[in-house]
Amino acid sequence: MAPVKNGRILFASHPDEYPIPGKDIIYDESESIDLENVPLNGGFLIKALVLSIDPYMRGKMRKVADVGPSYEIGKPLDNDGVALVLRSDHPDVKVGDHIFARIPFQHYTILQRLKGENFARDGIILANKENLPWSAYCGVAGIPGQTAYCAWKEYANPLKGEVAFVSAAAGSVGSFAVQLAKADGLKVIACAGSDEKVDFVKSLGVDYAFNYKKEDTAKVLEKEGPVDIYWDNVGGPTLDAALANAASGARFIECGMISGYNVQGGDAIRNLSRVVWSEIKLYGFLVGRLLPKYADAFYMEVPGLVREGKLKYLEDRTQGLEYAGRAIEAVQRGINKGKSVVIVAEEF
Amino acid sequence: MAPVKNGRILFASHPDEYPIPGKDIIYDESESIDLENVPLNGGFLIKALVLSIDPYMRGKMRKVADVGPSYEIGKPLDNDGVALVLRSDHPDVKVGDHIFARIPFQHYTILQRLKGENFARDGIILANKENLPWSAYCGVAGIPGQTAYCAWKEYANPLKGEVAFVSAAAGSVGSFAVQLAKADGLKVIACAGSDEKVDFVKSLGVDYAFNYKKEDTAKVLEKEGPVDIYWDNVGGPTLDAALANAASGARFIECGMISGYNVQGGDAIRNLSRVVWSEIKLYGFLVGRLLPKYADAFYMEVPGLVREGKLKYLEDRTQGLEYAGRAIEAVQRGINKGKSVVIVAEEF
Repeated sequence: MAPVKNGRILFASHPDEYPIPGKDIIYDESESIDLENVPLNGGFLIKALVLSIDPYMRGKMRKVADVGPSYEIGKPLDNDGVALVLRSDHPDVKVGDHIFARIPFQHYTILQRLKGENFARDGIILANKENLPWSAYCGVAGIPGQTAYCAWKEYANPLKGEVAFVSAAAGSVGSFAVQLAKADGLKVIACAGSDEKVDFVKSLGVDYAFNYKKEDTAKVLEKEGPVDIYWDNVGGPTLDAALANAASGARFIECGMISGYNVQGGDAIRNLSRVVWSEIKLYGFLVGRLLPKYADAFYMEVPGLVREGKLKYLEDRTQGLEYAGRAIEAVQRGINKGKSVVIVAEEF
Repeated sequence: MAPVKNGRILFASHPDEYPIPGKDIIYDESESIDLENVPLNGGFLIKALVLSIDPYMRGKMRKVADVGPSYEIGKPLDNDGVALVLRSDHPDVKVGDHIFARIPFQHYTILQRLKGENFARDGIILANKENLPWSAYCGVAGIPGQTAYCAWKEYANPLKGEVAFVSAAAGSVGSFAVQLAKADGLKVIACAGSDEKVDFVKSLGVDYAFNYKKEDTAKVLEKEGPVDIYWDNVGGPTLDAALANAASGARFIECGMISGYNVQGGDAIRNLSRVVWSEIKLYGFLVGRLLPKYADAFYMEVPGLVREGKLKYLEDRTQGLEYAGRAIEAVQRGINKGKSVVIVAEEF
């Protein structure tokens, strides 16, 4: 078989504010690959099926990344994804296996190792006994789900009857956090950025769901709070409103602060002194540190709940690798509806 | 004996920014008291000896206090102090006892109860076997000392060789925190607002002490850090510098944020997103919640260490109740040197 094109999404320049597809992020078809003959050197050849698009990726587009290495100019972006094994020299990997791993944004890649020192990020073979769509392993049954699950278990310390507030509650992490809070018997307030998202959030059994572009968050929390547990995906003015309306001893689970990611110089927070007066604890975390403690429980529990329809999620699918840049920009602007994934290829 | 004047420090108006003695805080001699005949109704008559002047008092001068009730216009301020018992109808209180309690800013007061539901704030009889100056019970052996002691034990989780950073390190809480950090084998960076204060901080064995008005905090921390434990007394730009230079997994003990107390609308914090990326934990706390757990250990250990000179402290004494307003303003402006106390009267 002749070599085929190996389309890639390249990082072309550091965005000033929002990343611009076609300028900062470009699709390139200049490379090709001979799928049958390319040497594997003990590794395995994969074909990307699904790529996860996540808010934190913006931080890797800075010259100095928020965390970990920056994306390199001229190289493909990378992130979590699910891929199919086409060929393998690796003793633990078989043709037809489905791999969940951090992979480059390109159709075909040769990977060398399956697992490594970083539990959260290195590849695992997905058994998928529950027969979930592969994209679920980029969301509710993947890193976003693990993020919600691990940090809630570690930091929330929920008491029945307490009030939880979740921002970006239609997203993959937020919607999971909402359902954990409801399962723990809390009153849940949740916000999202469109009426359509709010409808989905309401379907999760939230006690008070609102569109933060139409209702003032501080006023909602003043009326429905005070807040004992705040799951923060957004930072910025929403965080300020939660600080102003926190109950004494509140726990703030700091998962992300997207409102400042695309602002030069970062977002200004004005009410942080409430941390002292209301004895608030702010827990910043990355899932990688928590995952070893909770991973077994997560894989025992979560895929089954998804299969049974007991754990709901919303997915925003972009068809085609060439449109990954648009999906990335949409996530930064918050115009995706649910977990953003790029469907690179169907199974076969 | 004829009635004597009972001078008082009254709260006269809500400050716009810094409290102004003579305007917001006034000395009044319009009341008198008959010390021999005033009815006690089961309580006890005290004479104020020492009053503690603390940063958090500013928050009680707002129409809505940062925490607890606001000071009332036309009424005396109150805070912790040490007083001598002149007469007593109370079964547990004897003439000549020294009481540590929250007391009004006036020479003579009748108190009704010794202890109540609030461990940190209600009166206790000071045995003072160590024969410390009574003012020490407003500082190193009082609430500020307890604040440092309890929160360090609860939140610092120090590992030998880690780096601690302490702001306002010449103050009563900061200087105690510095000594706890050194005792735990940490490298300690500390800042204060004058060369004289820095000299005192250096005498505590700090590894790098600096005047933040002369050296850039962020640059110091970049060179001497990263910071594993930040004891925050000030908030504001110093907190931003610590966030930017925090080690992964850092603990921030949020004791106070005086830099924003006298600013309309509060201080803007710009680097809070580091909480996520560096997995920082911010622990806001008030000593009252921690004290029941640590009070016995504190009173067993600390007064003796002070007596032996193993725990150092600096005191800024204002002589005379009529000058309490000046002392309050000085603490807000950071021009006191060490723990601020007002000496209202000598023993007799």
